[in-house]
Amino acid sequence: MNAPPHPIDGNTELIAHIGFPTHAFKAPLIYNPWFEQAGINARVVPFACRPEHFDALLPALFAQDNVRGALITMPHKVSVLRQLARVAPTAQIAGACNAVRRGDDGQLEGDMFDGAGFVRGVLRKGLVLTDARALVVGSGGVGSAIAASLAAAGVGELRLFDLNSAACEQLADRLRAHYPALLVQPGTRDPGGCALVVNATPLGMNEGDPLPMDVTRISPTALVGEVVMRTRMTAFLAAAAARGCRVQVGSDMLYEQIPAYLEFFGYPTTTAEHLRAVSLIPA
Amino acid sequence: MNAPPHPIDGNTELIAHIGFPTHAFKAPLIYNPWFEQAGINARVVPFACRPEHFDALLPALFAQDNVRGALITMPHKVSVLRQLARVAPTAQIAGACNAVRRGDDGQLEGDMFDGAGFVRGVLRKGLVLTDARALVVGSGGVGSAIAASLAAAGVGELRLFDLNSAACEQLADRLRAHYPALLVQPGTRDPGGCALVVNATPLGMNEGDPLPMDVTRISPTALVGEVVMRTRMTAFLAAAAARGCRVQVGSDMLYEQIPAYLEFFGYPTTTAEHLRAVSLIPA
Repeated sequence: MNAPPHPIDGNTELIAHIGFPTHAFKAPLIYNPWFEQAGINARVVPFACRPEHFDALLPALFAQDNVRGALITMPHKVSVLRQLARVAPTAQIAGACNAVRRGDDGQLEGDMFDGAGFVRGVLRKGLVLTDARALVVGSGGVGSAIAASLAAAGVGELRLFDLNSAACEQLADRLRAHYPALLVQPGTRDPGGCALVVNATPLGMNEGDPLPMDVTRISPTALVGEVVMRTRMTAFLAAAAARGCRVQVGSDMLYEQIPAYLEFFGYPTTTAEHLRAVSLIPA
Repeated sequence: MNAPPHPIDGNTELIAHIGFPTHAFKAPLIYNPWFEQAGINARVVPFACRPEHFDALLPALFAQDNVRGALITMPHKVSVLRQLARVAPTAQIAGACNAVRRGDDGQLEGDMFDGAGFVRGVLRKGLVLTDARALVVGSGGVGSAIAASLAAAGVGELRLFDLNSAACEQLADRLRAHYPALLVQPGTRDPGGCALVVNATPLGMNEGDPLPMDVTRISPTALVGEVVMRTRMTAFLAAAAARGCRVQVGSDMLYEQIPAYLEFFGYPTTTAEHLRAVSLIPA
């Protein structure tokens, strides 16, 4: 008998990590060792949920006394919104949500901390966002979240681009509605003159993907961020670093946002550094 | 970074352990260390499911690609039957089911191995069941399962008792229908002359519970078995042992049945001894 701290037992709380496919899930490998080390009897467990089964799964899980929350990922980040009684402003602008909990009244409420994690990461690298010019390529769930959090952090100009130009325009409209003073420029992926340049597309997840923009236009003084976590230095980040840019790797956003999720679910909080130290993800 | 074998990740399969309350759940503490040692990326995780939420939970879980099966316990062991397309004979007689899987056609099928575990335990202690006389006190899910498995093992006479006399009579009727040659005696809890005497009631789970029968009527040559696992030697077993009886403790049934569940869910099998060796339950 060789008991780890808090093995799964009848008192274990669950955070359901719901998506499809699930093979690349990172959250269980970060939250669970931290829960163990922090003496918290909880686990993040995966649910490989195809789109047609999501609407039944979410309320069924939240009806269980020991389900504390849910982490929602592709392909459910947008469709989850229709199941929620309350959606935080950042998630409203993002048009997507990746964390759900029961509110005090028992109804489901959602938020989205991808963007907050990204912004926290660049602020901690010393970037000044107030009145800065930024480019976010990709207007899906994560790109929209980053754009919303950059707007909240006070950037002055936000360039937005997506191959789906309607998605890009709609994001621009939502941003303008919430931040009338912000200059929103949809439809351009020119990084020229930007202090912050972000790849929020999946480009880089597959070998041989094209770069998301013309890197020769990126200023060497820019900070260049990435959401793809397939490798630490993606081809895009490598090209930016070769130009002299500071970079923020994809996993920085991941680790920086987790304290916000822990607080959202009502657990004690921690730091990105501590989470990295106990993480089971190869560095 | 100090990775245990197969931490929970995106490829982890789930066995949902569904009941209410869940605090006394044992299965996660036995299956999970065995899965880890056997190199199987699977976990038994608890779901604290109140009765009114069960009908929605079960199909929602089985719609997930990574849910391999479910262990069903109180208060759902009987109500689960109405959700199943196929119910194994032992579970039909027991009128209860505690294991559910997807059949090859995608429909849910259930079985019940409590009784098989109990019977396997007493056989391995050298008891001859063929044509034997046995008393099973308690006609709930586990008592019914034990009665059904004893009938299948060839006992000659089965005495049955439950404070709910209708439950006892209904169990007797189901047994007679399946085993016309068996002498079924409902309504008596006299252990006199029985080779096997079983407490299948919850008596013994709480301090000060009365004994389930008059132990002075138990033959010293009888084997006396118990389903309560609150302590290894319950007051009932202690009283039987004081009369010279051999005893089977509650956890023997638990460990003896698990290989059958593993096979039912399509995992490699093992032995009760191996399961006890890796179990996180205090001995």
